[in-house]
Amino acid sequence: MIEMGNTTVLCAASVEEQVPRWMQGRGSGWVTAEYDMLPRATSSRRSRDRDSGRTASRSQEIQRLIGRSLRAATDLKALGERAVYLDCDVLQADGGTRTAAITGAFVALQLALESLVSAQKLDSIPLVCSIAAISVGLSNDNLLLDLDYSEDSTADADFNIVMTDAGSVVEFQGTAEGNPFPRQRVGEVLSLAARGLEPLFAAQRAALG
Amino acid sequence: MIEMGNTTVLCAASVEEQVPRWMQGRGSGWVTAEYDMLPRATSSRRSRDRDSGRTASRSQEIQRLIGRSLRAATDLKALGERAVYLDCDVLQADGGTRTAAITGAFVALQLALESLVSAQKLDSIPLVCSIAAISVGLSNDNLLLDLDYSEDSTADADFNIVMTDAGSVVEFQGTAEGNPFPRQRVGEVLSLAARGLEPLFAAQRAALG
Amino acid sequence: MIEMGNTTVLCAASVEEQVPRWMQGRGSGWVTAEYDMLPRATSSRRSRDRDSGRTASRSQEIQRLIGRSLRAATDLKALGERAVYLDCDVLQADGGTRTAAITGAFVALQLALESLVSAQKLDSIPLVCSIAAISVGLSNDNLLLDLDYSEDSTADADFNIVMTDAGSVVEFQGTAEGNPFPRQRVGEVLSLAARGLEPLFAAQRAALG
Amino acid sequence: MIEMGNTTVLCAASVEEQVPRWMQGRGSGWVTAEYDMLPRATSSRRSRDRDSGRTASRSQEIQRLIGRSLRAATDLKALGERAVYLDCDVLQADGGTRTAAITGAFVALQLALESLVSAQKLDSIPLVCSIAAISVGLSNDNLLLDLDYSEDSTADADFNIVMTDAGSVVEFQGTAEGNPFPRQRVGEVLSLAARGLEPLFAAQRAALG
Amino acid sequence: MIEMGNTTVLCAASVEEQVPRWMQGRGSGWVTAEYDMLPRATSSRRSRDRDSGRTASRSQEIQRLIGRSLRAATDLKALGERAVYLDCDVLQADGGTRTAAITGAFVALQLALESLVSAQKLDSIPLVCSIAAISVGLSNDNLLLDLDYSEDSTADADFNIVMTDAGSVVEFQGTAEGNPFPRQRVGEVLSLAARGLEPLFAAQRAALG
Amino acid sequence: MIEMGNTTVLCAASVEEQVPRWMQGRGSGWVTAEYDMLPRATSSRRSRDRDSGRTASRSQEIQRLIGRSLRAATDLKALGERAVYLDCDVLQADGGTRTAAITGAFVALQLALESLVSAQKLDSIPLVCSIAAISVGLSNDNLLLDLDYSEDSTADADFNIVMTDAGSVVEFQGTAEGNPFPRQRVGEVLSLAARGLEPLFAAQRAALG
Repeated sequence: MIEMGNTTVLCAASVEEQVPRWMQGRGSGWVTAEYDMLPRATSSRRSRDRDSGRTASRSQEIQRLIGRSLRAATDLKALGERAVYLDCDVLQADGGTRTAAITGAFVALQLALESLVSAQKLDSIPLVCSIAAISVGLSNDNLLLDLDYSEDSTADADFNIVMTDAGSVVEFQGTAEGNPFPRQRVGEVLSLAARGLEPLFAAQRAALG
Repeated sequence: MIEMGNTTVLCAASVEEQVPRWMQGRGSGWVTAEYDMLPRATSSRRSRDRDSGRTASRSQEIQRLIGRSLRAATDLKALGERAVYLDCDVLQADGGTRTAAITGAFVALQLALESLVSAQKLDSIPLVCSIAAISVGLSNDNLLLDLDYSEDSTADADFNIVMTDAGSVVEFQGTAEGNPFPRQRVGEVLSLAARGLEPLFAAQRAALG
Repeated sequence: MIEMGNTTVLCAASVEEQVPRWMQGRGSGWVTAEYDMLPRATSSRRSRDRDSGRTASRSQEIQRLIGRSLRAATDLKALGERAVYLDCDVLQADGGTRTAAITGAFVALQLALESLVSAQKLDSIPLVCSIAAISVGLSNDNLLLDLDYSEDSTADADFNIVMTDAGSVVEFQGTAEGNPFPRQRVGEVLSLAARGLEPLFAAQRAALG
Repeated sequence: MIEMGNTTVLCAASVEEQVPRWMQGRGSGWVTAEYDMLPRATSSRRSRDRDSGRTASRSQEIQRLIGRSLRAATDLKALGERAVYLDCDVLQADGGTRTAAITGAFVALQLALESLVSAQKLDSIPLVCSIAAISVGLSNDNLLLDLDYSEDSTADADFNIVMTDAGSVVEFQGTAEGNPFPRQRVGEVLSLAARGLEPLFAAQRAALG
Repeated sequence: MIEMGNTTVLCAASVEEQVPRWMQGRGSGWVTAEYDMLPRATSSRRSRDRDSGRTASRSQEIQRLIGRSLRAATDLKALGERAVYLDCDVLQADGGTRTAAITGAFVALQLALESLVSAQKLDSIPLVCSIAAISVGLSNDNLLLDLDYSEDSTADADFNIVMTDAGSVVEFQGTAEGNPFPRQRVGEVLSLAARGLEPLFAAQRAALG
Repeated sequence: MIEMGNTTVLCAASVEEQVPRWMQGRGSGWVTAEYDMLPRATSSRRSRDRDSGRTASRSQEIQRLIGRSLRAATDLKALGERAVYLDCDVLQADGGTRTAAITGAFVALQLALESLVSAQKLDSIPLVCSIAAISVGLSNDNLLLDLDYSEDSTADADFNIVMTDAGSVVEFQGTAEGNPFPRQRVGEVLSLAARGLEPLFAAQRAALG
C-alpha cells in the first residue's frame, strides 16, 4: 500500500506460471497492470465499471501506462514464460494516482520477483533498473511537483514522468490543459522531476529492505 | 480524407446543437473524437470492437488524445452549447495513424466551424490556433520523422507531438520501447517535430483554401 | 473499515438527494448496497467483474442480502426521498465477508444518517433498530461461531443470521453443504448467534461513540 | 411442467457428458439450474434479460438456490463426470415460483437420471433423497402456507424451505419484509412447512410413476 | 398458444400507452415483436441469449420479419400513440417456428386490439387485413408445404410467405440452400402457399370467435 | 471498393487457414460476411455499434444475407477447411447498400480465391457460379431498378434479388412497406432484376480482368 499525501493506492502483484495466449511460445514473459478506483475514493461517489461492463477509458489509459512502464524495467526474456499482474486499486484519491500507482507497483513487482528467486524458480531478479513516477504541473508560469487534486484541476499543463534511478526517461507525457506551452519548458520539467523522484527511490529502497 | 504515406484516415466532423448531458448549462461547447480501424486496415484482419462490446483500449487512448488536442485548439466558450464529433476511421494503416488523425481532424473541425459561420449560427470561427501532429522515432541513436509500421515496431523510443502553428506544444508523449532514453534527447525531438510539421500546416492551409 | 479476524471490509455510505427512478413520487427513501472484492482479497487472484460486464452472481446475492437487512433497520418513510448507497469492498477475505459487511455497513449507514441530522436535513435519525450479522457453521455435529475460510469450506451446514440488538431476526439463511440437517438444530443456531452478536453490537456502539 | 395454483413452471433437464471446465478431472459430476420468466408471465410485461446482457439479480439468487438444493439431493461422485442442467422457465407467475421450480426440477432431474440408468451409463440412480420446497408467510401474526402474489406482497416475513422426504432441512431462508420476527417463530415455520410438503412429495411420486 | 405439428409457440400481446421515444409526436402507433426459444425447445439444449447479452442474429432476423408483417396488417395512424409488443416464445420447435409465430401473433394482436375497443380507447379495430404465414420447401424438384425440421434441413430451397386473407403478398423470402432455383418456380410457390394458408385463416377465425 | 450512384462500399476478403470451431473436422470450408456503416455514411451521424456492444439488427440481417448468397456461389467442399471473411464497410450510403455489398463482395471473394490458386493451395477456383444483386422498388404501381434513398423510403414494396449469371435465383426477398402487393407482380420483378443485373455482371468481369 502506497500513500502519497491523501492519495492511497493498494498495489498487489500476482504471478501466473503462463503468459496470455497471444504471447505463448515466444520464450518471453509478460508484465501487465489493472487500475481501478473504489466508488468512494473521490469526494463524490462514482459508479463501478462492472455496471457498464467497460473499463473507464481513463482507467484504461492509466493501466496501459503502468504496464508499459513496468515492462520497461523488466527483463522479459529472463522472466521466462510467466506473467505478473499488478493490481493498483485506489482507496483514496487526491491527485497523482497514476504516478503513485507506478511507484508502488514497482515495489510489488520486485517483491514478487524476489519470491520467485526464493522459490528457486529464477536465478536472479529479472529487473534492469528501478523506476518511479511523479507529476509536475505548470500553473501561472510556475512549475510545481506532485499536485493534489485542487492544484491539478487548475493547472495550465500537466506532466507525468516515469524515470529510472539513473535518471533516464521511460515515459514522458505532457498535456496543455489551458494554453499550449513553450518547447523550452520541457527541459525544466524533466530536471524538476528528476529531483522530485530522489526521495521516492529512497522510499522504495527502504520498503524493499 | 487524409493520406500520409500508406496510411489513409477518413476524418468527418458532425455538429450537434447540444452538448452531452454532463456538460449542459455551463454555456460552453464540447469537441470530442472517435477513432476506429476497419478490420482490414492492417495486413492481418482484426475483429471489430462491436463483437466484444468494448472499444479497444488502444483506440480509447488514441481518441482521448485526439479529443484533448482539438479542444486545446478550440475556444469552447465561443462555440456555445454545441458539440462537434470527429470520426477518424482508418481505412489503411502503415504507422502514424494517430498523428494523421489529428492533422486531418483539425481540417474537418475547421470546415464544420466555417459552416456554422456560413449558417450564421456563429459570428466567427472559434479556433485559437491551428494544430497538427507528427511522430518521431529514436532508432539506433538516430531520430526519424514519421515512421512507417516496420520502422515503428523496431524503434527504441516513440514520440508523438501535437503542436500549434506558432510552435507551442499541445501534447507531448514519449515512450521507451527498448532502453530508457536520456533526458537531453527530448529537446532534439521537439525541434525535429517542429520542422516536420511545417509541410503539414501548409497542406492544411491548402485543403482549407 | 471493519476487521474481523483476517477479513477486512471497507464500508462507505453515500447519500443522494433523490431515489432511483422507479421509486420516485412515493415519498419514501431507499437504502441499497454494492459488494465487491478486490482481485487479491483471496489467496489466488480472481478477475474483475468489469471484464465480464456482470456482477458475479455470488456478489449479487450478497449485496441483495446487505440491502434487505439495512432497509429492515431503516424507517424509509422518515428518510424521505433520499437514497443511501453502501459500498462494501472486501480488501482481504478469510470467511464471513457478508456478515462483516452487514455489521460494518450498519455503522456507515448510521454515520451518514447522523450527518443528515447535523446538516438539519432530518430531525432525527431514521433507524428503527440496530442490526448486526454473524455466521454459524455445523461441523462434525458441533456448532461454531464465525468460521474462517478453511473451517467454512469443510462445514456440513452454513448459517448466516442478521438480528436486531433486541434479539429479533431480520434474515436467516441456512444451507446444507453436506448432509441435510435436522429441524431441531435451527433453534440452537439462533441462540448461539444471539450470544455471538453481543460483542459485535458493543463494538458498533463504541465505533459510533 | 409443474402447476401450483396459477403458477406454471416448465422444468427440463439436459445431461451433458462433461462437466464445466473448472470441475474437470475431479471424478465428480455437477448439477446446476437456470431460472427465467417469460416477459408476460406476470401481469405487466417485463423486458427480457438478453436486452441488458445480464441475468436479473433476483433470477440469479433463485437459480443459485435451485442448483444448491438439487446438488444436495444428488450423489455427485456416483454421477461421474457429467453435468445436468435444469432449465426452469416460468410461463405464468402467481407467487411461489422458486419453490415450484425446485419441486418440479427434482422430478425432471430424477427422470434424466433414470434415462442414464436405462441407457446403461449408470448402474443406479445417484440420488440420496427426494427434495421438495414450499413457502410460508407470516401475516398479521398468522403463518400461511404457499402464498400467492397478493398475499406474498403484504406478508411481514417470507420463508422458503427446502426439505427432504425424511423431514431434514436442505435450505432455509427467512426474510423480514416488515418487522423483524421473534426467534421462536422459526420452529413453527419448519413444522408447518414439513406438513405442507407431504402432498408435494406424493405428487412427485405420482409423476415419477 | 399456437401448435402446428410438433411446433408450439406462445404468443402474447402487450399494449403500452406510449410509443418508443424515437416515434413520439408523430401521432402514429407502433407494433413490434420479440422472438425467442426456450433452451430445450430443440432436441439439443442451446444456451440462453442473456448469457451473451445479444439476441441471436437468427432471432433478430425473425423478429424483424414478424414485426414488419404485423405492421403491414395494422392501421398505425388509427392505433394512435400506442405500442403493441408481441412476444413469441417457442416452447417446442420442429420446423416452421417463424411462420407459426406470425400466424399466432396475429391472433394475439387482434385480441389485444379488441380489448382496446372494449375499454373504449378505440372506436374500431385498427386492422386493414388478416395475415398468416406458411413455409414451402423445394426438395428433389418437389414443392412441399410446411416442412418439419428434418425435411427443412435437406431442402434445396426454403420459402417463407406472409399473405393477407385476400391473397396479396406481405412478405416473400426465398433462399437457395443448395442449387439456385429457376425464376419460374416462384409463381408455383406463391400459388401453393395461398392454398396452404386457407386452413390457417380458418383456424384464426375460429380462435377469434 | 464498389460505387453505385452515391453509395460506396469497401469490400475486403480475408482468408484464414481454419474454419470456425463449430465447423471443424467436416472437411468443408466456410464463407461469411460482416457488414457495417461508418458513423457518417448517412446524412445524419449514427453511433457506432461498439458503444452498445451489439451489431445493429439491420446489419445482422444484411450480413446474414451476404454470407448466405456468397456461400451459394462457392463450392465449400473444394475450398477445404478454410474460412473466407468478407468485410463490407459502407463509407457512403444512398440506397442499395446491401445489394452493392453482395456484388462487390463477390469480386473480393473471387480475387481471394484466385490468390489461393496462385499460392498453389488450391488447384482451381472453387466457385460454382457468379452472383450479383440488385434492388427493385414498386412505387405508384411502377417497378424501378436500384432505388436511391429517397425513392426507397417512399416505395410501396421493396425487393432484393440475388441471381447467378445464368439467371437462376439465389435469394429473393420482397417486403410490402405500404399495401400488400399482388402475387402476379413477383414474376415481373424477377424479369426486371435479371435485365438490371447484366451490366453488373459485366462490371464484375471487367474488375476481375
